[in-house]
Amino acid sequence: MQEKPLILVTNDDGISAPGILHLANIAKQFGDVYVIAPDKPQSGMGHAITINSTLRIQKTNFHQGVALEYSCTGTPVDCVKMAVNKLLGRKPDLVLSGINHGSNSSINVIYSGTMSAAIEGSLEGASSIGFSLADYGIDADFSATTPFIKKIISSCLKNELPKGVCLNVNFPKLKSEEIAGLKICRQAKANWVEDFEERQDPYGRSYYWLTGKFVNFEPEATDTDEWALKNSYVSVVPIMHDLTAHQYINHLKNVL
Amino acid sequence: MQEKPLILVTNDDGISAPGILHLANIAKQFGDVYVIAPDKPQSGMGHAITINSTLRIQKTNFHQGVALEYSCTGTPVDCVKMAVNKLLGRKPDLVLSGINHGSNSSINVIYSGTMSAAIEGSLEGASSIGFSLADYGIDADFSATTPFIKKIISSCLKNELPKGVCLNVNFPKLKSEEIAGLKICRQAKANWVEDFEERQDPYGRSYYWLTGKFVNFEPEATDTDEWALKNSYVSVVPIMHDLTAHQYINHLKNVL
Repeated sequence: MQEKPLILVTNDDGISAPGILHLANIAKQFGDVYVIAPDKPQSGMGHAITINSTLRIQKTNFHQGVALEYSCTGTPVDCVKMAVNKLLGRKPDLVLSGINHGSNSSINVIYSGTMSAAIEGSLEGASSIGFSLADYGIDADFSATTPFIKKIISSCLKNELPKGVCLNVNFPKLKSEEIAGLKICRQAKANWVEDFEERQDPYGRSYYWLTGKFVNFEPEATDTDEWALKNSYVSVVPIMHDLTAHQYINHLKNVL
Repeated sequence: MQEKPLILVTNDDGISAPGILHLANIAKQFGDVYVIAPDKPQSGMGHAITINSTLRIQKTNFHQGVALEYSCTGTPVDCVKMAVNKLLGRKPDLVLSGINHGSNSSINVIYSGTMSAAIEGSLEGASSIGFSLADYGIDADFSATTPFIKKIISSCLKNELPKGVCLNVNFPKLKSEEIAGLKICRQAKANWVEDFEERQDPYGRSYYWLTGKFVNFEPEATDTDEWALKNSYVSVVPIMHDLTAHQYINHLKNVL
């Protein structure tokens, strides 16, 4: 008998967030699920790892019917490293991250702990997918995501993703019947224009909150994730961890 | 009279680290230097930003002859955002990050706070360069880096880097006369194989230190940054923040 797929589930909102409960619940239908996720929210942690401090893990019981479940004091990337190299015993067949409470489309991919966990999964040689829903609310409705997540998991178990590539899947905040389908696309060129909100503490000293406005530099382009989400599609962007701007190497040889 | 270039200098080792003192000192020869850097070591922070907590800034005096100098409680990426959107008054002409104490070649680029600051600089529309020396020591000798840094700054002030591309510059731990020159290259395919060193705290509870071994998957390839460094070259890799695996989009349309 063939071994059941080993599926690692993690996120950046913390091990008890509704999004990861929903994702692990779907994953159980496809294999043995190991949940190893941060013990607290780690949004915006990007690809951070813990090297100036130590890590702790703790068995937890937030999830029903999973093979193993640990919270970890580290970042999402720490969780993947800890799982693959310490807790799982073998390389996972699939790494699933999310479902994030909030979109990780476009440039958000580089700030996102959710997507960094997926990228780390692909670095570890496993097919990896990050899922995000464009709804920050703790009471976000994840039900419309289910059939799409099943389809993507099923496809990735059948055809492994190529080495070094993972998927960034974003769901619009819509009901099932309003979603137009899946759209394979590219990361839109966009940016955040920050505004640092200055406040005074009770002792008269200034502190700042990072806030900002998202700017899509190419709202007309129809092959981007931003366009897909605005037009009721689930966006799927293949993401790689080779950051080399290959097309620029020759030019650089001439100017440096 | 033409305005002098506005140069932002930051790092991830903290505002008083020898590497940033050396870099800011060189930068002064090319324009008005603004140093806005973390108040403590932020190695391995990747592209993390501070959204669950607040930021503070503090005027400091570690650098000689710079126009403005602030330490910031946030990550390297926070420092760049804070500088560009709050402290500088206008877009910098150049963002320099480093000199990092330790190499950021190959896959290290995605964990590196130094390189994430440079990537953020390019997102803000400025020509941006991250510099790293393959020597972790606090007494590292940065003198051999000077002529190369001057050459690269000079070139980037003359010819702006293309939008969305920054440079990842790594120096081997060698004396000036041992360095073979600059080499434009690509990021080597490599990975870390982690080992979590388990220890017991005084109360008998386990904790872990993240450690690991670097594995170069293509030691024979001669066009990579790892090869360049091993062969006494300064490696220069053009880096981009579009993570889309464009070459995989069509294939994905067939399997999903």
